[in-house]
Amino acid sequence: MNEEDLLRLLRALPLHPGARGLRDDAAIVGAFVLTTDTLVEGVHYLPTDPPGDVAWKLLGVNLSDLAAKGATPEGVLLNYPLRDTDWDRAFLHGLGDALCAYDCPLIGGDTVSLPPGAPRLLTLTALGRDAVAPPRTGAKAGDALWVTGTIGDAGAGLAVARGEPGPAELLAAYRRPVPRLVEGRALAPHVHAMSDVSDGLLLDAARMAEASGLSAAIDLAAVPLSPAYVAYRGDTRAARRAAATAGDDYQLLFAAAPDYVPPVTAARIGAFAPGRGLSLHDAGEALPLPGTLGYRHSPLAPATRAP
Amino acid sequence: MNEEDLLRLLRALPLHPGARGLRDDAAIVGAFVLTTDTLVEGVHYLPTDPPGDVAWKLLGVNLSDLAAKGATPEGVLLNYPLRDTDWDRAFLHGLGDALCAYDCPLIGGDTVSLPPGAPRLLTLTALGRDAVAPPRTGAKAGDALWVTGTIGDAGAGLAVARGEPGPAELLAAYRRPVPRLVEGRALAPHVHAMSDVSDGLLLDAARMAEASGLSAAIDLAAVPLSPAYVAYRGDTRAARRAAATAGDDYQLLFAAAPDYVPPVTAARIGAFAPGRGLSLHDAGEALPLPGTLGYRHSPLAPATRAP
Repeated sequence: MNEEDLLRLLRALPLHPGARGLRDDAAIVGAFVLTTDTLVEGVHYLPTDPPGDVAWKLLGVNLSDLAAKGATPEGVLLNYPLRDTDWDRAFLHGLGDALCAYDCPLIGGDTVSLPPGAPRLLTLTALGRDAVAPPRTGAKAGDALWVTGTIGDAGAGLAVARGEPGPAELLAAYRRPVPRLVEGRALAPHVHAMSDVSDGLLLDAARMAEASGLSAAIDLAAVPLSPAYVAYRGDTRAARRAAATAGDDYQLLFAAAPDYVPPVTAARIGAFAPGRGLSLHDAGEALPLPGTLGYRHSPLAPATRAP
Repeated sequence: MNEEDLLRLLRALPLHPGARGLRDDAAIVGAFVLTTDTLVEGVHYLPTDPPGDVAWKLLGVNLSDLAAKGATPEGVLLNYPLRDTDWDRAFLHGLGDALCAYDCPLIGGDTVSLPPGAPRLLTLTALGRDAVAPPRTGAKAGDALWVTGTIGDAGAGLAVARGEPGPAELLAAYRRPVPRLVEGRALAPHVHAMSDVSDGLLLDAARMAEASGLSAAIDLAAVPLSPAYVAYRGDTRAARRAAATAGDDYQLLFAAAPDYVPPVTAARIGAFAPGRGLSLHDAGEALPLPGTLGYRHSPLAPATRAP
């Protein structure tokens, strides 16, 4: 069963009104936004990634969903499998630093034993408060599509983590994604739709368009790339396409009125129109869509280390 | 690292006031009670357990923590690893039935892929409302200790699940524990301390006594056993001791004033007094404490099937 089939089955279960039909990355229950994400060893991170970085990533990806709702972190619950004392200590040390950095306390959790040799599944559930909670579904025809920062760094960072020589900034973007909480709070009251970019810019933009019943057109030339990314992968059309379909960026993607001027750094990369589907162009030239619009997290092949 | 060492490290992290110092099974945040529990395949359930029953158990153990706070389920978040379509379908079918039975909708969740051969870790996070939330720490000297129902059934049911011939009621107690939500709501406004019995009656009673800064004395003869348990294991002192140290009962354990008469079925099994530690007696005769007071969930050896 793939995730789409599973989602169909899950949507047939009794749903809470705050679940928004499971069509969003976070739910609204009373005064709180709730979101949960699991990182699987060998799927979402490499067994060789430093445990402290895995903790920062686990917190970052969860808080990123709160950021997309304009929420402030209230706290997190941690489901933690015990396996190796040194790793556990380093993970918790990193988690402590990350919780302090985001002023996000621990609310509770559960610890379990693992059968020998089992990979870790690390689950965090985050609560946010004071959310404005623009939905993924709210884009309007004529809206501009924006993204808060550079795209593709984490995808390139994964290659670096697996042994390709490359810039440290890219590795850091992969291992310690920064949730855009300040940007989310500044944008949420003014934008029509917002989500984070977790699975790939094109995929998340297509989802926003579909959820809003619209089409979206994206200008590949307008997708912001970091100097480190350009130094590593170049600024060719292929490099831009690779960036736009890589995962784990955790920037915010938002739809806003065409005359809206964001109060935070952001790049205008496209527009919404009546219709369906996603289209891609590069400085006026229509481009075919890539075969896959994003990154599907599936078991990673063993890393090949460069000599 | 064992769970105690981990708890020490977790308590050194920045904690939410509602976490109650991580000394309780549930946290209080705003109007909600929050709890989360993970079931690990091969640790908390057998790979041969029917997937629908695993879903009932996952919901049951989480709602049991809400019951101990006198809360009503608001909904749950599910972290689900995809591995096998038939199993996934059966699990979700069972989960749907269980959610309907407890009038508990799905709020959200996350689905992930697993590396080949990895055991499942199933995580549920439950939100409850209208909690009175008696703490584990509130027992007073002179309080009576009560339990809401029979003890030891699930522990014996695990032996049946692993191939020993035995009563179906015991197997059901192990596979589909019933959270005592009605009892919890009726008791919570009146009792001084309450928790569920998840790890063993003696262990959970000892924890309540320690958390309350008191000693507890338990009368083994007063521990309620089911007819199925007695038919299976007998009513010897050894059988009673086995029941009192088995896990997964999910009855409620509570401390209340000595003249309190519970409005629900419950057995008075002991009392709290000044001092520290747990003592055990059987109709007036002091007994030595068993070497282990409860059931530690660790990887289960492969089941041995009876011929």
